[in-house]
Amino acid sequence: MLSTMQDVPLTVSRILTHGSTVHGDSQVITWTDGEPHRRTFEAIGRRAAQLARALRDELSVADEERVGTLMWNNAEHMEAYLAIPSMGAVLHTLNLRLPAEQLVWIVNHAEDRVVLVNGSLLPLLAPLLPQLPAVEHIVVAGPGDTSVLDGARARVHDYEELIAGRPETYDWPLIDEREAAALCYTSGTTGDPKGVLYSHRSLYLHSLQVNTAEAFALTPRDITLPVVPMFHVNAWGLPHAAFMAGASLLMPDRFLQPAPLAKMIETVRPTIGAAVPTIWQGLLAELDANPYEVACLHTVVIGGSACPPALMRGFEERHGIRVVHAWGMTETSPLGSVSHPPAGVSGEEEWAYRATQGRFPASVEARLIGPDGEQLPHDGESAGELEVRGPWIAGAYYGGAQGEPLRPDDKFSPDGWLRTGDVGTLTSNGYLTLTDRAKDVIKSGGEWISSVELENHLMAHPHVLEAAVVAVPDDKWGERPLATVVLNEGATIGYAELKAFLGERIARWQLPERWALIPAVPKTSVGKFDKKVLRRQYADGELDVTLLA
Amino acid sequence: MLSTMQDVPLTVSRILTHGSTVHGDSQVITWTDGEPHRRTFEAIGRRAAQLARALRDELSVADEERVGTLMWNNAEHMEAYLAIPSMGAVLHTLNLRLPAEQLVWIVNHAEDRVVLVNGSLLPLLAPLLPQLPAVEHIVVAGPGDTSVLDGARARVHDYEELIAGRPETYDWPLIDEREAAALCYTSGTTGDPKGVLYSHRSLYLHSLQVNTAEAFALTPRDITLPVVPMFHVNAWGLPHAAFMAGASLLMPDRFLQPAPLAKMIETVRPTIGAAVPTIWQGLLAELDANPYEVACLHTVVIGGSACPPALMRGFEERHGIRVVHAWGMTETSPLGSVSHPPAGVSGEEEWAYRATQGRFPASVEARLIGPDGEQLPHDGESAGELEVRGPWIAGAYYGGAQGEPLRPDDKFSPDGWLRTGDVGTLTSNGYLTLTDRAKDVIKSGGEWISSVELENHLMAHPHVLEAAVVAVPDDKWGERPLATVVLNEGATIGYAELKAFLGERIARWQLPERWALIPAVPKTSVGKFDKKVLRRQYADGELDVTLLA
Repeated sequence: MLSTMQDVPLTVSRILTHGSTVHGDSQVITWTDGEPHRRTFEAIGRRAAQLARALRDELSVADEERVGTLMWNNAEHMEAYLAIPSMGAVLHTLNLRLPAEQLVWIVNHAEDRVVLVNGSLLPLLAPLLPQLPAVEHIVVAGPGDTSVLDGARARVHDYEELIAGRPETYDWPLIDEREAAALCYTSGTTGDPKGVLYSHRSLYLHSLQVNTAEAFALTPRDITLPVVPMFHVNAWGLPHAAFMAGASLLMPDRFLQPAPLAKMIETVRPTIGAAVPTIWQGLLAELDANPYEVACLHTVVIGGSACPPALMRGFEERHGIRVVHAWGMTETSPLGSVSHPPAGVSGEEEWAYRATQGRFPASVEARLIGPDGEQLPHDGESAGELEVRGPWIAGAYYGGAQGEPLRPDDKFSPDGWLRTGDVGTLTSNGYLTLTDRAKDVIKSGGEWISSVELENHLMAHPHVLEAAVVAVPDDKWGERPLATVVLNEGATIGYAELKAFLGERIARWQLPERWALIPAVPKTSVGKFDKKVLRRQYADGELDVTLLA
Repeated sequence: MLSTMQDVPLTVSRILTHGSTVHGDSQVITWTDGEPHRRTFEAIGRRAAQLARALRDELSVADEERVGTLMWNNAEHMEAYLAIPSMGAVLHTLNLRLPAEQLVWIVNHAEDRVVLVNGSLLPLLAPLLPQLPAVEHIVVAGPGDTSVLDGARARVHDYEELIAGRPETYDWPLIDEREAAALCYTSGTTGDPKGVLYSHRSLYLHSLQVNTAEAFALTPRDITLPVVPMFHVNAWGLPHAAFMAGASLLMPDRFLQPAPLAKMIETVRPTIGAAVPTIWQGLLAELDANPYEVACLHTVVIGGSACPPALMRGFEERHGIRVVHAWGMTETSPLGSVSHPPAGVSGEEEWAYRATQGRFPASVEARLIGPDGEQLPHDGESAGELEVRGPWIAGAYYGGAQGEPLRPDDKFSPDGWLRTGDVGTLTSNGYLTLTDRAKDVIKSGGEWISSVELENHLMAHPHVLEAAVVAVPDDKWGERPLATVVLNEGATIGYAELKAFLGERIARWQLPERWALIPAVPKTSVGKFDKKVLRRQYADGELDVTLLA
């Protein structure tokens, strides 16, 4: 029996209309040239309508067409965030930090015919154009040297000239909430990038969740500082959520360095910020070194990777800024878990909860899957691969305009849950602690050994500079750990002594038999251990491995 | 192009499963016998499964079947709130304050075959049973004298005995989110009661909204006190929202008097409460008269009717409790607008904002319709009937098991919006101020005259005790105001003087020509002005009316 409630879809155009009327006085504040440039939500709404008119009437953007954005966090990108989905097209954010060949692959896969680009990013886009045959229109927002586009096949438009004089309203179409609204590619270390195709429904529900008190709790009395880029998982959903709640937005554009960040916080007085640990680490150092007035900022949300406890305590104890840990990924929109402590805890117990990845909201179900595919208890002990399900979790990847959705077995379980590739534990009260990436876990005789745990113990030894543990094939156990160790300069210590040191800390069956001294752990471009290099070196016999019974 | 996000429905069973696992330590605390009785969300979850098993296996409750509850706010009602929708049946809350003949009409219209009832309410239910032929099973929760049911046709079950020993899990069915989940009848002053049939989707989205920071902001660190009854618009959505957020619930059962309320607040320490003004008025008097420790309670939400400013200031200034005004109705789930002030206001300006009915969230669109059906500007001046649209707003009434949904013209606009029957203004930044019920507005020559405004001005005169203004037919203008006035004892004042007094305060064309002195304004059973009596007295020539040119 169907209910008799109104059948009103959850769409981005509702966020746009609501924010630009009821919260028309709220502002998007873009930081450029060392000062704030303010634009009201009401003006954003009018300009979003003009942008949609231009895209439709001038550039013939069709329903469902992907429109690329290669932009920093700023007011024009916000207009694109609202206009493109609302008109029935698909906002395709391009990650300007990707290697050139991946950017080219992504633009071609999405078949972007129109690309909005910040003038400051033209030097990045221009050299790629010969490999982007589908791109017909380039719309340049903000100052930049357009001469680098001379000779390009595509037509070049100035953003302001393109939208100027057009009607400031748009009769936003009624859209099925399950229609595509935005597209963001995730690039793993292997295989082609994979597109996550968000729906109006998923963006809307995610915005509601972001605005709950248990997540980021945005209100019209907040100014939100998304340092996390808008080309990175929708800036964690903050632009749409803030526009829905009427929370103003401080947009740092390309000024993500510690000094300008501190300056804009002191000047514009945001209340809540969000970024990856590296950025906040730099900001903390800046705040420690120089006097800034930042008491306005009561919360910073950290995600993207685990946050060092010293960083959390440093912000809170020295600057009165509370750090909140969160977890998510491109496939999860990205929220994910948020680490607010439970009721009734304090002191070190509270810190222990806050160091976890936190709890999931009602809309995201989580389960742990063990080495043999079995579901594990949420007992805080049993480690398994995290799988999640929910209305803003990807169920497949974008297959391209002609392709079927992609549903690779290593990313989706047979019953449709997302395999996150992260390994960890869940407590009975829902707190997630991640320990490993699934590909870094050693599957030994139906049990899992955490490479990260072995590494942390090894690196706690006074003579060890670095240690990386990887899985290597083993006839009897399937896989066993190989410990590769970098000693401190001048240190001499035997494998047996290291193994004994480990033996005092972990179960006997987890102890590595294979050991190798190496001069340095191979690293990726962002400084993480590159374990696939070690696995290949082992396979190719390039490591000098000692076997200990 | 459909997105590739997971297609996961928004259902009550998700709220149940999430709350009883991740927030299993949170509690439903029922106040009876002068003390708190605590039950964890985990236990609520187990018992909800047992209740569903009993309803399905023992009482053969079918999908889509309405199950009535005639209960106060307590843990067993919470179990019914979760179990009945989750199993695919429809929770039908019965308002125990309705006149007997309306209760009978409603139970028969909904075709309730099973009724859950608190033992303390058996004296209310028993006399109605002869008129309720469809009721086959009565499930009695809590102590009460069941002998009043002797001779009833229906089988009588004890709640605890019925659920005891049954499996503590239930494989909740996958339900389309647009399926009916709950049913609540609204009884106007005219016509039959009308059933609002909530969906899983509407309850879920409403719960998310309640938990946003801009609404009630519930978290696991809160204890929620819904004084508003669970038989009244789902206790404003608080039970489902709190269970979703992991916020504990203090349930006052039938102890809604000022002294026990103050005692339970002091004992259990809730953080946020919700009730109609009358209840809070009594509580304020109790807190003023006796020493209680109530600092825990930071917010009380007031809705149901406009809150007197003195009540808001009294709670805040004398007890540090912030009063938040909210508006809604059975047809709106009920949230509605909430009156948090905008950014950057303080002092009297802030109080002025807080005295309004507040702002709507993104999911509820509002518009004002004038006397001639035209849409009015949101300028804070133009008064019109409020119409709303959104995913948790009713689009029709329940037509009964065999009937088509009811969509009366006076309740729904041709384009599907709900006609609220309330008249007021909206500011450009979305603040709603209600002035009249539409039926109390005087439609004079294509303009509206607010009867409430005239009454307030008249009652400000030092010689006037009460004044009620109603519309009466007028050949020239369609309708004109009739002013009925009760003078203070011993006061003598002429109509001309009263009219002159009014003339200094309102526009000339709004001044009443018809005046009558009456001994007292007729009142309804809850003490509101009963204007339909005055209109009938005027029509029947029972009033001594003086005409002033």
